Amino acid sequence: MPKWIRGSEVRTTDLLIDALFIDRWSPRAMSGEELTHEELMTLFEAARWAPSSYNAQPWKFFYATRRSEHWPAFFRLMVEFNQSWTKNAAALVVVTSRTVFEHNGKPAQTHSFDAGSAFMSLALQGWIKGLVVHAMQGFDYNMARSTLNLPEEFQVEAMIAIGKPGDPSVLDDATRGRETPSQRKSLAEIVHEGPLLDA
Amino acid sequence: MPKWIRGSEVRTTDLLIDALFIDRWSPRAMSGEELTHEELMTLFEAARWAPSSYNAQPWKFFYATRRSEHWPAFFRLMVEFNQSWTKNAAALVVVTSRTVFEHNGKPAQTHSFDAGSAFMSLALQGWIKGLVVHAMQGFDYNMARSTLNLPEEFQVEAMIAIGKPGDPSVLDDATRGRETPSQRKSLAEIVHEGPLLDA
Repeated sequence: MPKWIRGSEVRTTDLLIDALFIDRWSPRAMSGEELTHEELMTLFEAARWAPSSYNAQPWKFFYATRRSEHWPAFFRLMVEFNQSWTKNAAALVVVTSRTVFEHNGKPAQTHSFDAGSAFMSLALQGWIKGLVVHAMQGFDYNMARSTLNLPEEFQVEAMIAIGKPGDPSVLDDATRGRETPSQRKSLAEIVHEGPLLDA
Repeated sequence: MPKWIRGSEVRTTDLLIDALFIDRWSPRAMSGEELTHEELMTLFEAARWAPSSYNAQPWKFFYATRRSEHWPAFFRLMVEFNQSWTKNAAALVVVTSRTVFEHNGKPAQTHSFDAGSAFMSLALQGWIKGLVVHAMQGFDYNMARSTLNLPEEFQVEAMIAIGKPGDPSVLDDATRGRETPSQRKSLAEIVHEGPLLDA
């Protein structure tokens, strides 16, 4: 396995957060190795326990492993740039969420938010297991819907590439140049006490 | 501090997920104690490092602590049921997200999903620190928007109550009866290999 860069090597925080949150990042270099069924299911199992409004669990994950008959259909959903590095993934996942509650058919206000919560558990569990988990918006949402035969009450949220870490040399030059944990806005930019001042 | 129930006391999994994911749950019983500024900021700091599309970090958290001048305005956003137990919270948070990218003004497809990811990091960090973190949909979204003077390009996603754990006796009878980690759908219900069969 190549050197596993930790976010804390290039990121700093003054607050006592657990290493997990600052160390996790979204690499692109993967080895092309497969995952066992159990390795993959363990990530979905972590997602399973996320909280959701009314405990409705609106998330539904569709996946294709690299050697399966479904891989080409999932792979072709992505834009060319994402194909250039996810070709070495072990699994591709389309995250969807149910937009209406099953118990009453009414709009589920937080279905996308809740799906994001479930994804984050998956991403953190993946990090802990030493796997690459990288979410993407760069794919054709409409094609994903038709490819999956997704029922109308579901919405496509994101795709995820999952795999074993690879040496950055597998990436093309431009992508390899970005293969490092990204920075963030300051805490002051994302947290505000009380309302904004009336304009 | 009251007995801190862990999810794994009532939940089971056959897969080797880290305890964090199955142990975390969303209690309602809080003690009414305050948090230090640092305790609260530590949770937002964990959220800060979540991934997002184009690393846009669309999340913005508005908060009111229980002794602050802003508390009443945040408290009155919630439905009566949520007020009945969040009255003992140390902080109330309104999670919002930016619906368009700052770099080009175009719709940010995953803004709610990304905000959910950031929330999940906050919730897990809170759990690790021994704090109650409980997200809610039960509040007036329009009133939240006007109370916060939220700019048009932001969307209200959810509210969060954060506090120190309390004895369940602080809850009313009906709520106390629900004060236990909730179950989840089976893995088979939320994970699917390949597309759905064409109807």
